[in-house]
Amino acid sequence: MPASEDDFLALIDRFFPNHGMLVGRGDDCAVFSCPEKMCVTSDLFVEDVHFRQRYFAPFDIGHKALAVNLSDIAAMGARPLGFSLSLAVPSGPGESFWSDFFGGMSALAQKHGLFLSGGDLSRSDKLAVNITAWGDCSRGYRLRGVCSEGDQIFLVGPAGLARTGFSVLESGASTQGYDRAIAAHLRPQPQVEAGLRLAGLEGVKAMMDVSDGLVRDFPRLLGPDMGVEIELEREDIDPEVVCWCSQTGQDPLEFSLLGGEDYALVAVVDRGAGASVEAAVQGRYIGTVRGQTGIFLRGRRLGCQGFDHFA
Amino acid sequence: MPASEDDFLALIDRFFPNHGMLVGRGDDCAVFSCPEKMCVTSDLFVEDVHFRQRYFAPFDIGHKALAVNLSDIAAMGARPLGFSLSLAVPSGPGESFWSDFFGGMSALAQKHGLFLSGGDLSRSDKLAVNITAWGDCSRGYRLRGVCSEGDQIFLVGPAGLARTGFSVLESGASTQGYDRAIAAHLRPQPQVEAGLRLAGLEGVKAMMDVSDGLVRDFPRLLGPDMGVEIELEREDIDPEVVCWCSQTGQDPLEFSLLGGEDYALVAVVDRGAGASVEAAVQGRYIGTVRGQTGIFLRGRRLGCQGFDHFA
Repeated sequence: MPASEDDFLALIDRFFPNHGMLVGRGDDCAVFSCPEKMCVTSDLFVEDVHFRQRYFAPFDIGHKALAVNLSDIAAMGARPLGFSLSLAVPSGPGESFWSDFFGGMSALAQKHGLFLSGGDLSRSDKLAVNITAWGDCSRGYRLRGVCSEGDQIFLVGPAGLARTGFSVLESGASTQGYDRAIAAHLRPQPQVEAGLRLAGLEGVKAMMDVSDGLVRDFPRLLGPDMGVEIELEREDIDPEVVCWCSQTGQDPLEFSLLGGEDYALVAVVDRGAGASVEAAVQGRYIGTVRGQTGIFLRGRRLGCQGFDHFA
Repeated sequence: MPASEDDFLALIDRFFPNHGMLVGRGDDCAVFSCPEKMCVTSDLFVEDVHFRQRYFAPFDIGHKALAVNLSDIAAMGARPLGFSLSLAVPSGPGESFWSDFFGGMSALAQKHGLFLSGGDLSRSDKLAVNITAWGDCSRGYRLRGVCSEGDQIFLVGPAGLARTGFSVLESGASTQGYDRAIAAHLRPQPQVEAGLRLAGLEGVKAMMDVSDGLVRDFPRLLGPDMGVEIELEREDIDPEVVCWCSQTGQDPLEFSLLGGEDYALVAVVDRGAGASVEAAVQGRYIGTVRGQTGIFLRGRRLGCQGFDHFA
């Protein structure tokens, strides 16, 4: 690891230009001009809970720690502006690890024009990253839980692909033929532009990002009294998902619906607005809101399984 | 610990009312109305790095994790508005631990009218808290590094008292007679009101909070080319510091100047404004800016020791 806190901060300065703020890093606080309304989110990304160093390259760790935050901002339909980075740093990784880590994070930050406001460093046994990110939602934003019977549900991004990548990597099986799946797990792409476009469309009523899998996230999207009739077809599933499921004897549709960490966007759309949503973003129709609870696939009710961070 | 993530979130809701925001906790992001200019800071607070459970009650841990952030906001002269909380949660502590922890944090949050925007939870081997807090500095703020020879330096808050408390607690000696010192280490009081008042005064040129001890923090306050002639007297030192130093054979003045974690405010003030500063806040004159580097106490140059988080 870098020899001192100052060395570490110098390395950060190499990757994150200290501008875009009224007062940059290095004072008690950073200061920046604000939009009228801001949204804010935080995500922890912890070694052996959220990622393994066995198959996450340092670049991937840096990328994904930021990407999962941007996905939350995308789900509001907001434009991300900046973030704060706290690092719990074990003694093992050296400067090349940290260069790659910051390289992955800064590539994504640059893509979206984000500034790094500062943060904190501490020693630790395991690597843990906390990012708090914020965005501009002055032009409007979309919440969860706004829907009526008959509304259409659209998905922007993959379903089950990240779970496939995770499963392949965890199993130790050959990764050949699973490039998209592995990239989906290691370097998810937050749907920032799609979120902004969707929030600009009339008829888009609710949005969220799918982090724990559609089956677990649907009730959060739709609210307590509503349900969904899923109309996803096997042809909608990525061939890499289908391939993994056939190798392991699983149903690809159910596997996709239970799969977490895709960081796709899911939107509830007024029935009349479906065509404009399909034109504006690469979104797929995946089902229709029902006026009663439950998640139905071809008439069969799915159990509400998924990922509890404490379970 | 609470049995599930939902139980944990319900406990948080008991302590932190989910208002003060346009969109509260529970969606992808929180949304709030912003002032024109905001300042932001983050601090990690990690078990066995920043605190020990042996003598930190859960209430203290919750308090101090937030207090150290508010101290940074106070040092800008800003009014704190809200914060985001990420918790790495070991399996040991039960619900009463977390009630006390959130009790300490929410008491301080209520005192300053802060909202909790959300955050994240993860399992972990050791307890770690990250807080990112922000404040309103639209009316102006104070930076470091703005000073001229002859400017006066004022201190608001203790010097060396938290180090005394830390030393007593670490030594395992009797804590009798060290109430203020121990409170200073366990429950530091961020100088929010003093910071706001100072930032409203003409002639207050620079401010920072003293987290690593005056000797280490002076160069950060004054910039690379300036120094200070310290005029702190033994009478200025808290009797508990003097008592501990006499017990352990240390010089109380040097001990105080090297002591960290007081979270006092230090301000550089135009010579003509000293009287108004003394009238506005409980500030003590502690020295004068010199036009050359070095920290001098009674003509003797002090070494630049202090706390490096990696050393």
